[in-house]
Amino acid sequence: MPTHADARRGARIPVAVLGATGSVGQRFVQLLEAHPWFRLAEVVASGRSAGRSYGDAADWRLDTLLPASAASLEVKPLGAELESRLVFSGLDSSVAGEAEDDYANRGVVVVSNSRNHRMDVDVPLLIPEINAEHLGAIDRQRKRRGSNGYIVTNPNCSTIGLAMAIAPIERRFGIDQLHVTTMQAISGAGYAGVSSYAILDNVIPFIGGGEEEKIETEPRKILGRWESERFIDAPFRISAQVNRVPTIDGHLMTISLKLRDGGADLDAIRDAIRSFTGEPQRLGLPSAPKQPVHYADEQDRPQPRLDRDREDGMAVTVGRLRPCPLLDIRMVALVHNTIRGAAGAALLNAELLEARGML
Amino acid sequence: MPTHADARRGARIPVAVLGATGSVGQRFVQLLEAHPWFRLAEVVASGRSAGRSYGDAADWRLDTLLPASAASLEVKPLGAELESRLVFSGLDSSVAGEAEDDYANRGVVVVSNSRNHRMDVDVPLLIPEINAEHLGAIDRQRKRRGSNGYIVTNPNCSTIGLAMAIAPIERRFGIDQLHVTTMQAISGAGYAGVSSYAILDNVIPFIGGGEEEKIETEPRKILGRWESERFIDAPFRISAQVNRVPTIDGHLMTISLKLRDGGADLDAIRDAIRSFTGEPQRLGLPSAPKQPVHYADEQDRPQPRLDRDREDGMAVTVGRLRPCPLLDIRMVALVHNTIRGAAGAALLNAELLEARGML
Amino acid sequence: MPTHADARRGARIPVAVLGATGSVGQRFVQLLEAHPWFRLAEVVASGRSAGRSYGDAADWRLDTLLPASAASLEVKPLGAELESRLVFSGLDSSVAGEAEDDYANRGVVVVSNSRNHRMDVDVPLLIPEINAEHLGAIDRQRKRRGSNGYIVTNPNCSTIGLAMAIAPIERRFGIDQLHVTTMQAISGAGYAGVSSYAILDNVIPFIGGGEEEKIETEPRKILGRWESERFIDAPFRISAQVNRVPTIDGHLMTISLKLRDGGADLDAIRDAIRSFTGEPQRLGLPSAPKQPVHYADEQDRPQPRLDRDREDGMAVTVGRLRPCPLLDIRMVALVHNTIRGAAGAALLNAELLEARGML
Amino acid sequence: MPTHADARRGARIPVAVLGATGSVGQRFVQLLEAHPWFRLAEVVASGRSAGRSYGDAADWRLDTLLPASAASLEVKPLGAELESRLVFSGLDSSVAGEAEDDYANRGVVVVSNSRNHRMDVDVPLLIPEINAEHLGAIDRQRKRRGSNGYIVTNPNCSTIGLAMAIAPIERRFGIDQLHVTTMQAISGAGYAGVSSYAILDNVIPFIGGGEEEKIETEPRKILGRWESERFIDAPFRISAQVNRVPTIDGHLMTISLKLRDGGADLDAIRDAIRSFTGEPQRLGLPSAPKQPVHYADEQDRPQPRLDRDREDGMAVTVGRLRPCPLLDIRMVALVHNTIRGAAGAALLNAELLEARGML
Repeated sequence: MPTHADARRGARIPVAVLGATGSVGQRFVQLLEAHPWFRLAEVVASGRSAGRSYGDAADWRLDTLLPASAASLEVKPLGAELESRLVFSGLDSSVAGEAEDDYANRGVVVVSNSRNHRMDVDVPLLIPEINAEHLGAIDRQRKRRGSNGYIVTNPNCSTIGLAMAIAPIERRFGIDQLHVTTMQAISGAGYAGVSSYAILDNVIPFIGGGEEEKIETEPRKILGRWESERFIDAPFRISAQVNRVPTIDGHLMTISLKLRDGGADLDAIRDAIRSFTGEPQRLGLPSAPKQPVHYADEQDRPQPRLDRDREDGMAVTVGRLRPCPLLDIRMVALVHNTIRGAAGAALLNAELLEARGML
Repeated sequence: MPTHADARRGARIPVAVLGATGSVGQRFVQLLEAHPWFRLAEVVASGRSAGRSYGDAADWRLDTLLPASAASLEVKPLGAELESRLVFSGLDSSVAGEAEDDYANRGVVVVSNSRNHRMDVDVPLLIPEINAEHLGAIDRQRKRRGSNGYIVTNPNCSTIGLAMAIAPIERRFGIDQLHVTTMQAISGAGYAGVSSYAILDNVIPFIGGGEEEKIETEPRKILGRWESERFIDAPFRISAQVNRVPTIDGHLMTISLKLRDGGADLDAIRDAIRSFTGEPQRLGLPSAPKQPVHYADEQDRPQPRLDRDREDGMAVTVGRLRPCPLLDIRMVALVHNTIRGAAGAALLNAELLEARGML
Repeated sequence: MPTHADARRGARIPVAVLGATGSVGQRFVQLLEAHPWFRLAEVVASGRSAGRSYGDAADWRLDTLLPASAASLEVKPLGAELESRLVFSGLDSSVAGEAEDDYANRGVVVVSNSRNHRMDVDVPLLIPEINAEHLGAIDRQRKRRGSNGYIVTNPNCSTIGLAMAIAPIERRFGIDQLHVTTMQAISGAGYAGVSSYAILDNVIPFIGGGEEEKIETEPRKILGRWESERFIDAPFRISAQVNRVPTIDGHLMTISLKLRDGGADLDAIRDAIRSFTGEPQRLGLPSAPKQPVHYADEQDRPQPRLDRDREDGMAVTVGRLRPCPLLDIRMVALVHNTIRGAAGAALLNAELLEARGML
Repeated sequence: MPTHADARRGARIPVAVLGATGSVGQRFVQLLEAHPWFRLAEVVASGRSAGRSYGDAADWRLDTLLPASAASLEVKPLGAELESRLVFSGLDSSVAGEAEDDYANRGVVVVSNSRNHRMDVDVPLLIPEINAEHLGAIDRQRKRRGSNGYIVTNPNCSTIGLAMAIAPIERRFGIDQLHVTTMQAISGAGYAGVSSYAILDNVIPFIGGGEEEKIETEPRKILGRWESERFIDAPFRISAQVNRVPTIDGHLMTISLKLRDGGADLDAIRDAIRSFTGEPQRLGLPSAPKQPVHYADEQDRPQPRLDRDREDGMAVTVGRLRPCPLLDIRMVALVHNTIRGAAGAALLNAELLEARGML
């Protein structure tokens, strides 16, 4: 079966990265280096970086070397006119709101990892395996802007892991209630976000920026419907408690679920998880994991260091499915927070837009 | 008001430590060094240690120096006749069951941290602040044994933290349901228990030895009653999910609670926590914390490294009390797992026995 | 033998802390709480903290609770007139130079942990066990200032550990050359100094601010002489290589030494280490360790977590003394970098000044 | 230019792994999965694993999934007759000595990572970039054994990093003396080797098994010559001090060097490092790094987490080259201890044997 990816021809599409020197921005630069469809053409950053070479401005922190082609790009100031029609945004939320709107209004397609526009009434909060049909909102968004540009967002890093872990269950059995406690890696806070003095030999039972609220609201939009020109939330309720733990990458979470119709055939649930698939798999998108949600049979998995890199960090892993004495079932889920939970998620969103002819 | 502690006179009581070379055993030796009532007279260990000096046999791992008086003691073999009438047991559960029974049957008072006899029908699972009246079971136990000796146990390290955190709430408002997710320190597994290769940059969502089951059952016995010669469990139900995290000491847990009568006056609950007190405080026991459960007002506390040593590790700290979207309230609790959660707990139990004249 | 400490009478001396909200400042506040001679009367900080209560302005990070008496103090702005004649400075080096001079010129005795004035020609770089006679420089300093005030400094955290570890050897056998490689704890960089993303599962073979240069020069002043109104450096040379490692507190270092007269009777060296003592011990200063340099016989000690708190963090520990295939001897040394290596060092300096009647 | 690798044809060579369930053994299994020349045909382990499937017997700990083809292999007992003519040994040193001799005497080519035979008078201690000519010793070894089989070893993990870092300098400028302090990752001790309680928030200035002695002797054999049927050590002397630090993978070391002829043109040394190359590069061996020794220009590199994976973990990285106040130059070096420092090293050795027609 020929896929879109196989069929695609011609030169790679030039793209820009906003907030290119930050932690999410660096991941974008890393993941774009060898991308078959997109080519990093422009890097944009606020403040002091503009005018310097990217190699000079970025304090590169990833464990692969800075791509030479990126290093030589000159950093453009935020707001500068861009030649790229597609931009990825890893901007800090303090500036992302206005800057992304501005670019979208000028006709640019903004694929954003920032939180500012996630809950907007005509902005998709997109996980292509789950809610590709939310792209229907873009028509309405374009009308509002009076522009051909638009914004598409991906969820919070923890939300993506949670939403993907429960989507196979929600779609087949329905979910009524959900308790989740997260243990989140320090990379989620950016390079300078968590002081080592704060987190070594420690756990911090709090994450700022409304982390718990995001996890309690975003999944309901994601698993909801786009219908009659508006988003209708999924009806389940969530209680989220978040913690920062001393791991580098990989958000782990314990989950307890009440199913809509009770009952809990664990084998059927495991089967739903393993067979779950969506648009990215059907379209053969370049960044799509072959199996979006893995199930680990070992009694002590998933674990951040051992499982976060499954399918290049794009698959979520679930394990320890078992009955809950209070609700119906319990399980553990893991997501690579800076790949599937951030830059990789945005990249997959952009690939879906391209495959759908929306660029 | 003169307390028992003030009133006490005379020589310190000689005591023995079983399993003295293990991690809990070393804590016993450390805490007993300057104890006002008890004097370490004998150390007992299984296998290869017997016959050697304690300083030679113990691979001392605590961050205070090995007391010289303990170092010179000769290690006695498990089962040896002891001169001490009171023994503390930090034995591994593989041998504790039989060995503790054996000593109790020979007239010894065994204050144990091991799990083997915790759920026995006539053995108190004691937290002196909560259920001192469970000592009523000892009469029945002595009859069964036909001996003056008996066993008293303290709960699992996580259970103690959980039970103390919820006791003030349970006693005043009643508890109906409880979700708890723990993040447990590596010292809970003993010195060699968790390989660094397993836990660095990682979280393990599983702890062997029935950890979740213990947390789901022990609190019900602890908060239950001794009545008509038997233990009657408290009626609430618990769902526990446990994780090992890379912290040295201090088990942290997120808790979500349904109260018996609903409602949730957070100020009243905070007040219940702060004013909670019990027998050890009334009797002025030497190891008793002044305030058994602290409440931390900061939004990001308690934290293991910053709060585990409150009141020399004998106080539990609670924080982040807030409403739960699904149940009634949520909060975070912390216990020093090797002090209040193990050796310190047993020591306090023994102090209660002495103050009650039961030695 | 009555000591100065025993003899002392009367009210505690009021003191101020400059830079009180920083990491060294917080240690000063902590250590002063129960000090027998000094009483924390004033807290001073730059910038936004001034005018707020200390409890409000300090983001308290130590593992003991913030003393209530300190919490209620109002933070004064840097440069404010002070009622205290003695001030401790934990100021950042960006402001310490001028501010400390200013106070000294106004008649205040400034006991500083900052690096700015350490190498000044008439400022003692004081370790009371080693070079109490350097206080002779104060007369000359007072003349220069035309004031009764003056500055006394303590060395860099690593330097203190190194200087104390080698002083017993240098004093008895003479030292000719010295290689040292440090493994320094993250607390040395202050609370926000080292990002967890930078140091978890990592070692950074570089520390800014001229760390290697300080270690290569300060010990020569410390172990040198005050003679004919000037400091004469000790003649040995040092090569220092520094690393940041993921430990909380405690700088560990490997040392290789060439002795002046060759030869290396290891027993004699160990004896020199263990019997080393100085003014603080003779005077019975309150913060003085009984034995300034401990020697650990175990083959794998000292270790930061196990040995940093010896004598309340005021003793340095040496171990693994053995021959060097290239020079004469090798050994390992450890210092608690924020106590003996910073705030505790300054406190001991001030105690010496008081005992000598120089306040 | 066609290389041997390009030229090679035909089926992959079946190989066995001895000690396949251990940490080095698992790396062998991982690296062999997609190897172009070798095919994992047999797994061998001592004791309880024999007779079980590898998937069942191995407690797989790497961060890639256990290859399915390996999982289904039946573990053979140590000493069993093998069909493979080439075996990789990751055996523990307690059994490696005899078992490897036994297989070699039976005609098997044993490529070993164990320490037992490294210093044997006719066994190459091989780093193909440095001393491929040491393979000359194999003739003599075969004669001794009266067999076609033989043993080839690779050095200790730290030694490989050190030897590769200094080889470019030694070959061009000569080395006279060398101080090295290592900071070694916990994976070097195997999965259960370092307890987390021992190493979290800590550094251990000691590694058992004669680690310092190995680093002081092995490099002299490696950089020496095979001449007149015997190994002649290189004449320089080494002083090594070793430490265990809480990193997962990657041994970092600070080095201070005295050159044979003094002088120290840093640019010439950097050039020697970057241009260093050897047999594996000339032959295009599949596991050969393109550039065996990288030089990092940043002032704070190399760092274990950021640089250990360069060239799939097969390149060593050097940085911070600068003058030494005591000797001539100083620098920092890093090696991935379980890839280039263990399993990857052995694999490269076997590739050299195959390319030379010695299998």
